[in-house]
Amino acid sequence: MSFVITGGDAAGMSAASRAKRNKPDLDIIVLEQTSDVSYSACGMPYNIADPDREIDDLVVRHADVFRKSQKIDLRTGHRVDSIDRNKKTVSGTDLQGRQFSIPYERLLIATGASPIIPDLEGFNLPGVMALKYLSDGRRIKDYIKSQNVKKAVIVGMGYIALEMCEALRERNIEVDMVKPRQVFIPWMAEELSGVVREEIEAHSVGIHMGHRIEKITEPGSNSLEVVCSDLTLGCQMVLVATGVKPNSRLAANAALDLGPSGSIAVDRMLRTSDENIYSAGDCADAYNVITGQKTWVPLALRANRAGWAVGDNVTGKNVEIEGIVGSAVFKVFDLEVARTGLSVSEAEKAGFDPVEEVVKTRSRAHAHPGSKTLYIQIVGDRKSGRLLGMQIVGKEGAAHRIKAAAVALHQKMTVEAFSQCDFPYAPPFSPTWDPMLTAAIQLLKKL
Amino acid sequence: MSFVITGGDAAGMSAASRAKRNKPDLDIIVLEQTSDVSYSACGMPYNIADPDREIDDLVVRHADVFRKSQKIDLRTGHRVDSIDRNKKTVSGTDLQGRQFSIPYERLLIATGASPIIPDLEGFNLPGVMALKYLSDGRRIKDYIKSQNVKKAVIVGMGYIALEMCEALRERNIEVDMVKPRQVFIPWMAEELSGVVREEIEAHSVGIHMGHRIEKITEPGSNSLEVVCSDLTLGCQMVLVATGVKPNSRLAANAALDLGPSGSIAVDRMLRTSDENIYSAGDCADAYNVITGQKTWVPLALRANRAGWAVGDNVTGKNVEIEGIVGSAVFKVFDLEVARTGLSVSEAEKAGFDPVEEVVKTRSRAHAHPGSKTLYIQIVGDRKSGRLLGMQIVGKEGAAHRIKAAAVALHQKMTVEAFSQCDFPYAPPFSPTWDPMLTAAIQLLKKL
Repeated sequence: MSFVITGGDAAGMSAASRAKRNKPDLDIIVLEQTSDVSYSACGMPYNIADPDREIDDLVVRHADVFRKSQKIDLRTGHRVDSIDRNKKTVSGTDLQGRQFSIPYERLLIATGASPIIPDLEGFNLPGVMALKYLSDGRRIKDYIKSQNVKKAVIVGMGYIALEMCEALRERNIEVDMVKPRQVFIPWMAEELSGVVREEIEAHSVGIHMGHRIEKITEPGSNSLEVVCSDLTLGCQMVLVATGVKPNSRLAANAALDLGPSGSIAVDRMLRTSDENIYSAGDCADAYNVITGQKTWVPLALRANRAGWAVGDNVTGKNVEIEGIVGSAVFKVFDLEVARTGLSVSEAEKAGFDPVEEVVKTRSRAHAHPGSKTLYIQIVGDRKSGRLLGMQIVGKEGAAHRIKAAAVALHQKMTVEAFSQCDFPYAPPFSPTWDPMLTAAIQLLKKL
Repeated sequence: MSFVITGGDAAGMSAASRAKRNKPDLDIIVLEQTSDVSYSACGMPYNIADPDREIDDLVVRHADVFRKSQKIDLRTGHRVDSIDRNKKTVSGTDLQGRQFSIPYERLLIATGASPIIPDLEGFNLPGVMALKYLSDGRRIKDYIKSQNVKKAVIVGMGYIALEMCEALRERNIEVDMVKPRQVFIPWMAEELSGVVREEIEAHSVGIHMGHRIEKITEPGSNSLEVVCSDLTLGCQMVLVATGVKPNSRLAANAALDLGPSGSIAVDRMLRTSDENIYSAGDCADAYNVITGQKTWVPLALRANRAGWAVGDNVTGKNVEIEGIVGSAVFKVFDLEVARTGLSVSEAEKAGFDPVEEVVKTRSRAHAHPGSKTLYIQIVGDRKSGRLLGMQIVGKEGAAHRIKAAAVALHQKMTVEAFSQCDFPYAPPFSPTWDPMLTAAIQLLKKL
């Protein structure tokens, strides 16, 4: 059996390693267009924050380890350009410009996602960068150093934008953030996103919303301007963080079915519409357990888990993975910002009748020193009483606490059942009633 | 309707407040033998740690607030001595030695628990104290100050003992801990309890296990000795923290059914074997959701929740509470120590076929600065594949993380289903695979 994988990041290398462990004599070829495999992409903002750390610290396992220890035929600098489903071959080009064509019995498309770069003047200037690949991280660090960057503009206000605004402030770089929409974090309850905004502004970051970006100009050397219709922001570096799109062109050209946002449609066994072709990672879709509907959420845990399941399935294990509930977390300055499940508008779109409650509580017990404010938004369904989602923002106890709500969502628990949970209590960690229980009890009154 | 409550702490005052809110014209009489109601007992070690804080900081709501704002007839200094179930009266004595007898239609016994004091010579000396009531906290603080305590011995190594050893070290008091059993924390996996022990010893606390205590002597003024068969520990103060027992004598004398450890048996509506008498709080038992069996776990959340349910039920709401899963957490120096569910031996006793796994992981992502070691023990049932319990020890991310496992236990989730949960990931908070997922995946290999 020959198993070919296009894409050597989280999903691809998880699949390769898992398949090889299950079946050591399996022929595995991994084709990766860059020279980097198996690195912590999510760690890049924190690495960029520290001028004394090398970007290569983020490499979890070097290509040679896969080759030598795991006997995986890993070919970096190999870009796959097309799939011939009839002949069962993938064709492409290597770094030297040589064409290759490789037969497969099973194929995994794990091509990931790419940053969306607006098709506007100046977005190709040298000081304008996105952050996706390890090479981007290296380039940003080098640029900050060589150009002695003192001022940056971030276009976009998503996870990466927010993490990078902290990273750049850590390096004492002035930061302005700009985007066209008027809403700061659209999926977040307003009371909570306001807290995040305050935290960012308290660190002297300029937040400019409702400004349509027209172009980026270079008025002088080491000088850029982000030009909006009614605002111009000067800087030396622009980070474009306006989201990502699935790398599904290869799949689309091979006429495989696509899912939400143009991602590659897969079933619970990670099979595409071609039974010999799997897809996993940021290029593929997933089931949302709460709605039962397809969704596209390009995040690391899903990529790893899906890759692993593909490794199992190509070696005959028939593993199904249930899906996601939509959990995410980020840190911005001193705040932990966490979500799981559906926001009110997502719940409405999915056909629920959502009711929300927002509570503001203490992170520690009555009179316990060091207590911080914790904000929790909870969403339930009026018809079924089910818990649909939760968001938590606070300086402690948000990131880990929300995992309890994620389990409840996987189990389709009602808000009432959730409110009965036996959560451990000690004064340094929470009030006697955990704030999640308080939120659930308050929501019950409305349901 | 007249509703009489004996005991004005967490369960009693929760019931009184809730009942009054549901039915403002209800006659409620609360009889409390001490002068303190509604204080954070669990906060006492942290208050004792700080000489500049008043113990009264821990009072959440003063007696007069209940009397004036909530119109609850709260009678402090009133000790109930007996219940006449035929006449439906409670009788007792007040602080002035006057007898009282009060009729009830519904009665709540919320008498709490008392420290177990060994029946040995010297345990009644002035410098020998337990920590249960607010008056104990006050007495300990006063004693440390007036006697200028520099050295203390703690008898016992349970939650309170461990929290108090930290509190006393904070005040720069030398601490020795002693107990007869050879096992440090019996319910804890050995790899994890070893970590706790190291943390305590690193803070210069002497841990002396396997020493039967014979007596406490007072060789001179401001000087005590805890005498064991093969060890004598000198000090100025002894804290007795050898556990608590339910205050169920009143119930036993009234021939109500008792449950585990002599606690008062109640059903899911908190009714005792007499339909007009409820019990809640540290004196009453509970169902363990995992085993379906009765258990006695005197902890604050259960007390509050049960009291609240009684308040609902005496006002006609028919609320059932499911039970507990056995969650607890404490902090000792820089460590968070958390548990939920069953230990291996508890699982065996309950008729399961437990299998455990212990993993040692990082608290943060690969290469993320500031990462700490996290130890997780997970227990599953070989027959059903069910998750039975989890314990986590670490310097960050233990206390809140374990709530996810508590939800899974309420839902009787399998280890496999738990391993599929969508937990949010960001480098400052965990590796891509949350350590709980890693633990579950490792355990699956054994199940």
